[in-house]
Amino acid sequence: MTDFFAGIPKIAYEGPDSDNDFAYRHYDPDEIVMGKRMEEHLRFSVAYWHSFAWEGGDPFGGQTFQRPWFGDSMDHAKMKADAAFEMFRILGQPFFCFHDVDVRPEGETFAENTANLDRITDYFGPKMEETGTRLLWGTANLFSHRRYMAGAATNPDPDVFAFAAATIKSCMDATHKLGGQNYVLWGGREGYETLLNTDLKREADQAARMLSMVVDYKHKIGFEGTILIEPKPQEPTKHQYDYDVATVAGFLQRYGLDKDVKLNLEQGHAILAGHSFEHELAMAASLGMLGSIDMNRNDYQSGWDTDQFPNNVPEVALAYYEVLKMGGFETGGTNFDAKLRRQSLDAEDLILAHVGGMDVCARGLKAAAKMLEEGKLEAARTARYAGWESDEAKAMLGSSLDEIAARVEREQIVPQPKSGRQEILENLVMRYV
Amino acid sequence: MTDFFAGIPKIAYEGPDSDNDFAYRHYDPDEIVMGKRMEEHLRFSVAYWHSFAWEGGDPFGGQTFQRPWFGDSMDHAKMKADAAFEMFRILGQPFFCFHDVDVRPEGETFAENTANLDRITDYFGPKMEETGTRLLWGTANLFSHRRYMAGAATNPDPDVFAFAAATIKSCMDATHKLGGQNYVLWGGREGYETLLNTDLKREADQAARMLSMVVDYKHKIGFEGTILIEPKPQEPTKHQYDYDVATVAGFLQRYGLDKDVKLNLEQGHAILAGHSFEHELAMAASLGMLGSIDMNRNDYQSGWDTDQFPNNVPEVALAYYEVLKMGGFETGGTNFDAKLRRQSLDAEDLILAHVGGMDVCARGLKAAAKMLEEGKLEAARTARYAGWESDEAKAMLGSSLDEIAARVEREQIVPQPKSGRQEILENLVMRYV
Amino acid sequence: MTDFFAGIPKIAYEGPDSDNDFAYRHYDPDEIVMGKRMEEHLRFSVAYWHSFAWEGGDPFGGQTFQRPWFGDSMDHAKMKADAAFEMFRILGQPFFCFHDVDVRPEGETFAENTANLDRITDYFGPKMEETGTRLLWGTANLFSHRRYMAGAATNPDPDVFAFAAATIKSCMDATHKLGGQNYVLWGGREGYETLLNTDLKREADQAARMLSMVVDYKHKIGFEGTILIEPKPQEPTKHQYDYDVATVAGFLQRYGLDKDVKLNLEQGHAILAGHSFEHELAMAASLGMLGSIDMNRNDYQSGWDTDQFPNNVPEVALAYYEVLKMGGFETGGTNFDAKLRRQSLDAEDLILAHVGGMDVCARGLKAAAKMLEEGKLEAARTARYAGWESDEAKAMLGSSLDEIAARVEREQIVPQPKSGRQEILENLVMRYV
Amino acid sequence: MTDFFAGIPKIAYEGPDSDNDFAYRHYDPDEIVMGKRMEEHLRFSVAYWHSFAWEGGDPFGGQTFQRPWFGDSMDHAKMKADAAFEMFRILGQPFFCFHDVDVRPEGETFAENTANLDRITDYFGPKMEETGTRLLWGTANLFSHRRYMAGAATNPDPDVFAFAAATIKSCMDATHKLGGQNYVLWGGREGYETLLNTDLKREADQAARMLSMVVDYKHKIGFEGTILIEPKPQEPTKHQYDYDVATVAGFLQRYGLDKDVKLNLEQGHAILAGHSFEHELAMAASLGMLGSIDMNRNDYQSGWDTDQFPNNVPEVALAYYEVLKMGGFETGGTNFDAKLRRQSLDAEDLILAHVGGMDVCARGLKAAAKMLEEGKLEAARTARYAGWESDEAKAMLGSSLDEIAARVEREQIVPQPKSGRQEILENLVMRYV
Repeated sequence: MTDFFAGIPKIAYEGPDSDNDFAYRHYDPDEIVMGKRMEEHLRFSVAYWHSFAWEGGDPFGGQTFQRPWFGDSMDHAKMKADAAFEMFRILGQPFFCFHDVDVRPEGETFAENTANLDRITDYFGPKMEETGTRLLWGTANLFSHRRYMAGAATNPDPDVFAFAAATIKSCMDATHKLGGQNYVLWGGREGYETLLNTDLKREADQAARMLSMVVDYKHKIGFEGTILIEPKPQEPTKHQYDYDVATVAGFLQRYGLDKDVKLNLEQGHAILAGHSFEHELAMAASLGMLGSIDMNRNDYQSGWDTDQFPNNVPEVALAYYEVLKMGGFETGGTNFDAKLRRQSLDAEDLILAHVGGMDVCARGLKAAAKMLEEGKLEAARTARYAGWESDEAKAMLGSSLDEIAARVEREQIVPQPKSGRQEILENLVMRYV
Repeated sequence: MTDFFAGIPKIAYEGPDSDNDFAYRHYDPDEIVMGKRMEEHLRFSVAYWHSFAWEGGDPFGGQTFQRPWFGDSMDHAKMKADAAFEMFRILGQPFFCFHDVDVRPEGETFAENTANLDRITDYFGPKMEETGTRLLWGTANLFSHRRYMAGAATNPDPDVFAFAAATIKSCMDATHKLGGQNYVLWGGREGYETLLNTDLKREADQAARMLSMVVDYKHKIGFEGTILIEPKPQEPTKHQYDYDVATVAGFLQRYGLDKDVKLNLEQGHAILAGHSFEHELAMAASLGMLGSIDMNRNDYQSGWDTDQFPNNVPEVALAYYEVLKMGGFETGGTNFDAKLRRQSLDAEDLILAHVGGMDVCARGLKAAAKMLEEGKLEAARTARYAGWESDEAKAMLGSSLDEIAARVEREQIVPQPKSGRQEILENLVMRYV
Repeated sequence: MTDFFAGIPKIAYEGPDSDNDFAYRHYDPDEIVMGKRMEEHLRFSVAYWHSFAWEGGDPFGGQTFQRPWFGDSMDHAKMKADAAFEMFRILGQPFFCFHDVDVRPEGETFAENTANLDRITDYFGPKMEETGTRLLWGTANLFSHRRYMAGAATNPDPDVFAFAAATIKSCMDATHKLGGQNYVLWGGREGYETLLNTDLKREADQAARMLSMVVDYKHKIGFEGTILIEPKPQEPTKHQYDYDVATVAGFLQRYGLDKDVKLNLEQGHAILAGHSFEHELAMAASLGMLGSIDMNRNDYQSGWDTDQFPNNVPEVALAYYEVLKMGGFETGGTNFDAKLRRQSLDAEDLILAHVGGMDVCARGLKAAAKMLEEGKLEAARTARYAGWESDEAKAMLGSSLDEIAARVEREQIVPQPKSGRQEILENLVMRYV
Repeated sequence: MTDFFAGIPKIAYEGPDSDNDFAYRHYDPDEIVMGKRMEEHLRFSVAYWHSFAWEGGDPFGGQTFQRPWFGDSMDHAKMKADAAFEMFRILGQPFFCFHDVDVRPEGETFAENTANLDRITDYFGPKMEETGTRLLWGTANLFSHRRYMAGAATNPDPDVFAFAAATIKSCMDATHKLGGQNYVLWGGREGYETLLNTDLKREADQAARMLSMVVDYKHKIGFEGTILIEPKPQEPTKHQYDYDVATVAGFLQRYGLDKDVKLNLEQGHAILAGHSFEHELAMAASLGMLGSIDMNRNDYQSGWDTDQFPNNVPEVALAYYEVLKMGGFETGGTNFDAKLRRQSLDAEDLILAHVGGMDVCARGLKAAAKMLEEGKLEAARTARYAGWESDEAKAMLGSSLDEIAARVEREQIVPQPKSGRQEILENLVMRYV
């Protein structure tokens, strides 16, 4: 056992007026919101990589964190797991997520990697049992190792495709073994640095083929979780193929995969793609593809992925509004794909960053639920489109340009615009947040 | 006849060493490039709106241009046409493009608009005959009038949909009458200002329905041109549905319209969507959807559509490389969707901006053609993916994750990365531009 | 009297639980915050231009608003003033701001403009008296008319400089006459479209000379208000000279004007310059130059000035925190430089947008005040720098590189980093907003 | 001696038609341009860090390059130096630049670092002699080590300030010893991650104090090179104090350092600050502060520092135009602060990236020189401001607002705008590039 978190108490709900840093002010797992416990709504998850594997480096500086578990051996991996589950216990976190490379030492060969992954996931089992922490999703890191520098599924070298495919298989096996609820693919290197050496069509075909194999393998092993793609427009590559919700939806449809795959959406990635988070959520929901979320925030003035803990309730509320409106998460949840600032060196920074993020989400969820339950926003939306419910309007959609033109001319239709009432709706939202 | 361009000579090709401002240095319409006259490759087109209808305003200031044809009457419209065709003659421009509102006075009703459009297009006919200028594409302006403030096809009011549909019909009729080679739809207001009052699913259905009617009407009237959608991510709206190539491709597939509609791509819109122009072109070409281009440039430091004339040969060369690689334009062409800076007040500014832009495009085309003919870039690209031509690699694509994993383990595959040679390829391109 | 606002009641404070749209939930002008009435803290002001002169146009569409006072005559100007003061009365707004062109019809000559301005400001006098609305600041619009297309003070044509100087004089006179508390200069065209035709040094000298004349004239007429420059990085021009706080501060120092001029800071302009609003406020405060604020928000996904009403309390709270920390406004205030979305057509949109914005600001102010009064954030900041209070540290600042190097070597100093505690401080802020 | 570059010939000028990859097509060091050898104009420099110390990592992946000299010992450092000077020889590069940490192993203490730096710079001496490569500038890396995570000069801990000051001293000593022509300060961590824990005023004072000590120490040791600050707006920090030229100029003036310090400007940093490179150059030149340049390009679609080799002649030509217009470099030069893409693994990538970059710069310089010599652009600029040369205009600058207003009224001045001729000037530039 590591004593990294020594002295930090288990976090409990104490209500908004608490003066205790180590308490939830808004997140009470048992509070009922829209007929369901808050814990079951939010389905919080810790991201193993940011919290336990990341060393604090950035493009201009190296490691700042000093953790006893940093190192390349299986013993280090176990110490890291001890610390991780200790944190899950302290936070009462119901879920976690991991990449293979976060949890196991790197081997020389695929076989060695797989064996390492087996050993460490065996080590996880009893700990998950003991703490009650479940696996929200597993994934394979197919972007950090130099072999993936030119892509995994989309690599010009078929051997890399093979190595990636094998690695995905072992990670799906591990996820399945641990009862994971989803399996995620983020194509950090599935993109290009320059069009000059890139064949877009061929790479798209390769990516689709890999994804089909993933879907097939899921069925083969009886994995009942959801396959999720996580869009991101760029970084590390100049252009990443899974740019945003609309792009991925088009890709999935083109290759007949839209029934088998959903999306894991991240606030920071939405921002980098030029969208608001709620846009990506609403778009995915409108296509029936919203699976899970990576909750963080991106600094609005930074042009790279800052992966900060959320701290803005009005924004978070609009995100959960979309989630609740589509009926809430099924297999998905709220994964804190957020990392400490590299100056936040201490164990208590790690704990309290999560505490703060969970409280912000809890406030957002409660505001969203109230907004949805009171129904004023949806009533206004419905009223705006009411004209389309008339028989005449519906008939028009079944007619033709020339028939419509004839009618416009005949009836001398001169439409009169009506107020969109944006500020009034924003005022309405403001009452809840 | 207006004497707006009085004293400006017809522009002729004089070669790169000419000292005459009013000459082409690089654009020789008759020069043969890859077996075709340059004019037939580039298919230049003047945008009626920027050159003749725009008054020089911006969000912080009003009209700067003083043109004798500014005004709301049919006489003004005719004087505008006189000036336009005079410019086409001076430039030897083979094509032009227009929106209905650019060319006709605004009426009180749809019927009046249609009558006005008929009259002015009748006036165009002999002029087109005389100058030899053809119509690259026509389009309906469904974004400037206040009735469209909340969208045309996607408007919450079915009467606006009707008015828009009728207007499209009349514009398709006019385009057909004038022998237009394409019909373009740019959805400047098909998007939203706030999600709070927006139903994404419903609006997408409406947009798709309108587009289907357009395709049907095309067949009904025997219009043989191409239907083109022009993507843009935002501006004027916060979010425009036809965000970029990938988004529009997904939309078209979702509604079964991808065989009937291609894309008109604009450099400035690509930039606003976070892409390079060549990205959008290559992406569209890889999907078989590249129809035509709007040639301009966007200031890289301005977050809005600056629609400037192109002035960077290395960039333009990469654009035409994609066009030539897909076999060149069919019905499409190079439309200068570029406007004078609002301080460029004079007739000669208007002429010389086009002359400069045409020369930049000609240099770009010739560089691209040479690069393609010499084949070094394509040879390097092919070599990079050569591994995928082996039987084993092809077989792998037909296998499964577990079979691949077994092989990786059995053969102890440890892929070795190879250089992507980006700088060397950039050096290669540099030899041509 | 116009009946534009007919039926809209005077807005009163009803508290957070009110169900009345036409009520303040958080803004109670008489509530005491840090020893001062809230009204005196916030010093709200309506921007005449957005609320009464703007017609709803954007770069792709024209007028959407239909106001009875739109028109070019003095009668229209008076009707506009009637409506404006009616709105000030309804809102209980203590201040307003205007440009000359917002309030008067445009004349053919400078003399006519001045006469028109005199007449309308005479018309304002009794209305201000009656409603108690005061003038926060006046300013000259030196950017909309085509004569200013290449700059006002920085124009290459000295006649434009002259016309601008004369216009500023008349606007300063008007501001003085009406008891204005500040005079603002926003250099919307003081910048460039292209460096190719621009002489940066010369234009900076011209701008400085104009500003010196403004300062001199202020003293000459005994105007006791503050002269404020409003930074903005770009739009309408590609580059605007008054880019941001740091740039303007450098300019003022270079020309010896930093004692005579302060800054009017706008959220949207900060965002366009790549800064957070609180950055610009903190930077100005650290230089003793924070004068007044233009309160709005910029859509984070739009690359142009969106000038929306504020709706995010956590952000607004951080802004007022900087204001309160420097001791609150002196002559400055909170001007709503925010415009309705162009689809918000109705009188109630105009009223309720202000009501919502005022409530957001009131919540932000109260949160900021509490945060400052409780002192935890400032205590943490002080503690972080405590090491610098030692005599040794102070002495070091007076020494030299070689002395310090000798000491580092002698004492074998190896500094140990301490946590920056960012997330913990963000959690702290979260308790107040 | 390493054989890393084995088989790569010394690069010689072969002219534009050469088919040899390993040749200069445009850079002929001895070609006379505006009366000076091209080598003396451009003063090319290799950046030791990117070419020899960077391992190919990015935020999502680790080392891709495998260099025999990677390692932490003095032997590795010497092998690195061997390779570096071998590359300088191959390229015929006249200059190089380095940070302390690029060239020496990291020690446990300041004393050990200094000793290591002494040893390796002793090792450099004969190599510089032999190859004729000189030191363009030296600098201290005060951003990578975790001790600097919260700043160097601006750190809240005075011990870090001390360690940084000592390190600067040792780097200035090393630079002086090697005959360096400039000493550069880039404040990669002089900024903040959050305003919540930051005291802007105090940090600015600390930075200024450190800079004063640098200037004092320069004089003390008789270093005749130029002290240069390198602006950058952000990355790694959220906000970096030396944001851009205007910001740094203001800072230097505020603390009386503007006579002692000039600027080292980088294209990529200009882009991140929302400026064109030529803007930053022109601004610095107008203030007499343009010292040296870091030549690279930033991908226009990436929001972080991409540090790519330049490949766009039209852009580079405008940069050198500003350099030539101010009279050319004095102590400054063209440092390739550009790194290979991390997929460019091979020795020949490293060589050819520089060859390509040098050729692009050579073309840019020659175009700029011709443009300046022919004088058309400057003549147009002068003509535009000609009105200001009249006695009346000059007198106006010495008068006052009320005198000017009286004259405008009396003379009924109504200025008439003239064309800014932007496109015509762009066409002119196009003839040279």
